[in-house]
Amino acid sequence: MNKTDLLSHISIILVRPKYAGNIGAAARIAWNMGINSLQVVGSELPERETIARLATHNAAHIVENITCYSTLKEALSPFSVIIGTTARRGRQRLTEKSPREIAESVLPALAENRIAIVFGPEDCGLTNEELKYCQLLSAIPTADFSSLNLAQAVAIHCYEFYYGIIHMQRDVSPAPRLASSFELESMYSCLQESLTHIHFLGDKNHLYWMNNIRHFFGRIKLTSKDTNIIRKVCRQFSAHLKTERNRDDEHKTIRGKQS
Amino acid sequence: MNKTDLLSHISIILVRPKYAGNIGAAARIAWNMGINSLQVVGSELPERETIARLATHNAAHIVENITCYSTLKEALSPFSVIIGTTARRGRQRLTEKSPREIAESVLPALAENRIAIVFGPEDCGLTNEELKYCQLLSAIPTADFSSLNLAQAVAIHCYEFYYGIIHMQRDVSPAPRLASSFELESMYSCLQESLTHIHFLGDKNHLYWMNNIRHFFGRIKLTSKDTNIIRKVCRQFSAHLKTERNRDDEHKTIRGKQS
Repeated sequence: MNKTDLLSHISIILVRPKYAGNIGAAARIAWNMGINSLQVVGSELPERETIARLATHNAAHIVENITCYSTLKEALSPFSVIIGTTARRGRQRLTEKSPREIAESVLPALAENRIAIVFGPEDCGLTNEELKYCQLLSAIPTADFSSLNLAQAVAIHCYEFYYGIIHMQRDVSPAPRLASSFELESMYSCLQESLTHIHFLGDKNHLYWMNNIRHFFGRIKLTSKDTNIIRKVCRQFSAHLKTERNRDDEHKTIRGKQS
Repeated sequence: MNKTDLLSHISIILVRPKYAGNIGAAARIAWNMGINSLQVVGSELPERETIARLATHNAAHIVENITCYSTLKEALSPFSVIIGTTARRGRQRLTEKSPREIAESVLPALAENRIAIVFGPEDCGLTNEELKYCQLLSAIPTADFSSLNLAQAVAIHCYEFYYGIIHMQRDVSPAPRLASSFELESMYSCLQESLTHIHFLGDKNHLYWMNNIRHFFGRIKLTSKDTNIIRKVCRQFSAHLKTERNRDDEHKTIRGKQS
């Protein structure tokens, strides 16, 4: 697979960007680095003229092809490797790595997988709810003042990925095709249902435990087949529980009649 | 020397920047990466309000401390290692390296030397006349569309230098204190005079040969003492030529009187 094909597997996703200038500047730097997919989560693009001016005519095709998704989940659907970006450090976060470490670790997967790099809004970044979709967390190393301009953060990530691709060794063994976000979310939904059935997940700390489970599976790099197996086990488990419950109900009814 | 001290030896120099937004964004990313010196070559700063807004209040002190120099030569005076940035490839240019290669090669010199990273105007970049002051030429690797936004180019350079410093091995042997740009320019001026005297430099190709001489000395990494020796040789040479010429003139006068 040549470098252009590899770059076509990378998408930049901006979640609710506030400033049109940042969208345009992000499109321009993406194109500088050979990346031609930029997507937005939000109702519509603000100030299209400003976006076009900052993107320059060279990146006009990227701007024209932006799709606005109503949810991050929907935007991420076709991607198998999802990188969240953050400046903040907090509890319940995956261990952050630098964009260089992230690029090095995921580039072998690029031939067989689509990669999304997700950026939050300028003022507050990605929420914990949004970060749950990300298997990897990237934080640009900075001095004391850690809040980078959005387009600058996009620039450094695009640059690291492009640099990584042009310096990639030919003998790197390619990673297999991994499960897409759509398949993973479907699996998590089944898992959540099963774990709720057995009261492992209750009202309290529901999110906490599900995030831990997501981190656990995020590390394993599941394939499409893996998610199918887990989903089938969960469904079978739910079906079995239902049968048990029905039998239990029947017994109660019989005993009720006998007594 | 700690990392903060090393970072204080780096300055970003913007030559005739056109857009206030780029100056502000450059100040912000410089501060993100622990660099607190930004200088401008140009008559005055445009739209101070826009600069301040893009810099954010965190980098306000960098903006307040910007000095506007009338010439690049003047701005570069205290620096010993000068890195020119370019997107273009042309004849008479030094061999370009990536910002990462440049950072790796010059960081050992940082403890004893001040380093300037010079960026040209948004529309046309640094001229050949300006590039002659630079010992190293940095070009960010890009796909087909090589023209980066100015603030993005500043971002990638600041990031590479900061990253290099925080990952610098302790056992790197520090480079000696090198000649400042002021000392180098004084040396080149003496050399040029001497080479013009002996008609090595004529009207034609004057710039071409001086650039070659600059590239040659640029590779050697001259110390302050080296430039002193070369200047003294040139002066002695000029003085000697003058004496010879005077003696020659005297002989001619004597012969003229005798004939």
